[in-house]
Amino acid sequence: MNTIEQQFQEILQDRKPENLYKPISYILLQPGKRLRPQLVRMASAMFGGDPEQTELVATAFEMLHNFTLIHDDIMDKADVRRGQPTVYKKWNSNIAILSGDALAVMAMQQLLKLQCDPKTSLALLDIFAQTALEVCEGQQFDLDFETSEEVPIDEYLKMIRLKTAVMFAGCLKSGGRYADADEQSLQALYDLGIHLGYAFQLADDLLDVYADESVFGKAVGGDIKDNKKTFVYLKALELADESQKMELKRLFSTSDMDEKEKFNRVKAIFDAVDVKKITEEAISLYTDLCLEDIRRINTQEENKSGLLALIHQLQNRQK
Amino acid sequence: MNTIEQQFQEILQDRKPENLYKPISYILLQPGKRLRPQLVRMASAMFGGDPEQTELVATAFEMLHNFTLIHDDIMDKADVRRGQPTVYKKWNSNIAILSGDALAVMAMQQLLKLQCDPKTSLALLDIFAQTALEVCEGQQFDLDFETSEEVPIDEYLKMIRLKTAVMFAGCLKSGGRYADADEQSLQALYDLGIHLGYAFQLADDLLDVYADESVFGKAVGGDIKDNKKTFVYLKALELADESQKMELKRLFSTSDMDEKEKFNRVKAIFDAVDVKKITEEAISLYTDLCLEDIRRINTQEENKSGLLALIHQLQNRQK
Repeated sequence: MNTIEQQFQEILQDRKPENLYKPISYILLQPGKRLRPQLVRMASAMFGGDPEQTELVATAFEMLHNFTLIHDDIMDKADVRRGQPTVYKKWNSNIAILSGDALAVMAMQQLLKLQCDPKTSLALLDIFAQTALEVCEGQQFDLDFETSEEVPIDEYLKMIRLKTAVMFAGCLKSGGRYADADEQSLQALYDLGIHLGYAFQLADDLLDVYADESVFGKAVGGDIKDNKKTFVYLKALELADESQKMELKRLFSTSDMDEKEKFNRVKAIFDAVDVKKITEEAISLYTDLCLEDIRRINTQEENKSGLLALIHQLQNRQK
Repeated sequence: MNTIEQQFQEILQDRKPENLYKPISYILLQPGKRLRPQLVRMASAMFGGDPEQTELVATAFEMLHNFTLIHDDIMDKADVRRGQPTVYKKWNSNIAILSGDALAVMAMQQLLKLQCDPKTSLALLDIFAQTALEVCEGQQFDLDFETSEEVPIDEYLKMIRLKTAVMFAGCLKSGGRYADADEQSLQALYDLGIHLGYAFQLADDLLDVYADESVFGKAVGGDIKDNKKTFVYLKALELADESQKMELKRLFSTSDMDEKEKFNRVKAIFDAVDVKKITEEAISLYTDLCLEDIRRINTQEENKSGLLALIHQLQNRQK
């Protein structure tokens, strides 16, 4: 079977105009975690789904994910991703808008290539569309938060549910749905994706402050530099006393302070309120929910080992 | 049956976040020509398609069209559309990118609501995706032309085929496909859309120079002001003698000349080479092709009268 990179190369062969398709091939061929296609494959394999056909579903979601990255990077003015210039930076925003649009359509077309019961194809397109729309909603909530004075933690969690977790859930449910899993298992796969998404994002928020840079592969402190209201920041605010709270808010409203100094002062407050421990506990809690979800999947235990390993790997991830 | 505006209002009810959905409702509820849904309806009615269900297809394409408008207006830095501020101008580009994305997904979801043979739904989603991708390609060619020294007329026609005509073709074919038209009729409907699209765009290019402003509803000369390489400009270049050619190229590389003076000088050359007549002849030629296409549709003659009237109306359009 072709690797995912070979599949992308094949899809993109001989397409014109170059300014539309080169950025797509640029982002799709970057080395990434490929976590979403892995989720699709694992769920499908649990129920004996045909591996070759499953690749169409796996690539559809990886393409959908990369479409959101291209557009998010314009909105967030992010210059670098995976150690390379972002599409909007390497080309320009117009090309990034348009190649993102085209990539979303091509993602949908992967599902239209499926050779299976038309009802299955439609069910997958339904999950795909719902996921795509919710990711847009999540990104808009995230943009709205940038200018909000106060962001309650439950609002933040609702946002990452939409922006991150529903994609994991959509991948797992789609893999299962392609392979004709029963309704209860589909619900369990979906819930698992949501809980995994929460754990994944909270770990992400934590790594931005506490990662070992040599393993992390990039500089820590990006969220702090950008005054990003992450779980770690919001939780620290909640735990802080009045003077720490004022100091944190003041630090998160400046953009001209020396980067290193700002990071150290923020981290000192984070350490003082022990937000690392609290966040790790929240991650553990979501991981436990994942383990409960996985129990509800109606398949033999040995079929679950891959997914279990992935959950533990993500829980302990260093990058 | 609900009007298209009522349908849009219903779809958009109670959606959050507001910053995502307000721009969508803003653009969808603007009074437009609603040409694309009309094409879907006419083709479906020709073959006895259920009118209520056909509305799902009609709205899908109108939404897809409006998605392209939201994104194109960012790329073209267009401040006004239909006499009102564009989405990116009224809100900002981030909101315009994201609400465009969401609108494209919602368009697709209209087709997923169809209650018909799953194979029909998939065929419609296929036409929809193909159309969406080609419109992106057309827009990229158009952006590329902005910085091209020379644009051959056949390249220009290929661009408007993708950017404008395939949407008309997709609408007509989808209407027919929903109503189970035979293959020959579907091909004829598709070809009709392409030819109608060419005629429509050439008329558009011509109106920018020669419209009666009181009927046109907006100022003429927008394309000339923006140095846009339209059919009228490219054809005039082809017909011009050496000195006219140099003058035209010079005029189309300035942006600081008095708008009115530039318009008059460009128009003087257009008049001298009689490009109006040549363009009208090209429009007639495409209209004749439409009439040939319509003959190939396997339905009773009386079913064709609406479409025939529309073709003549578009051929003689003043705005």
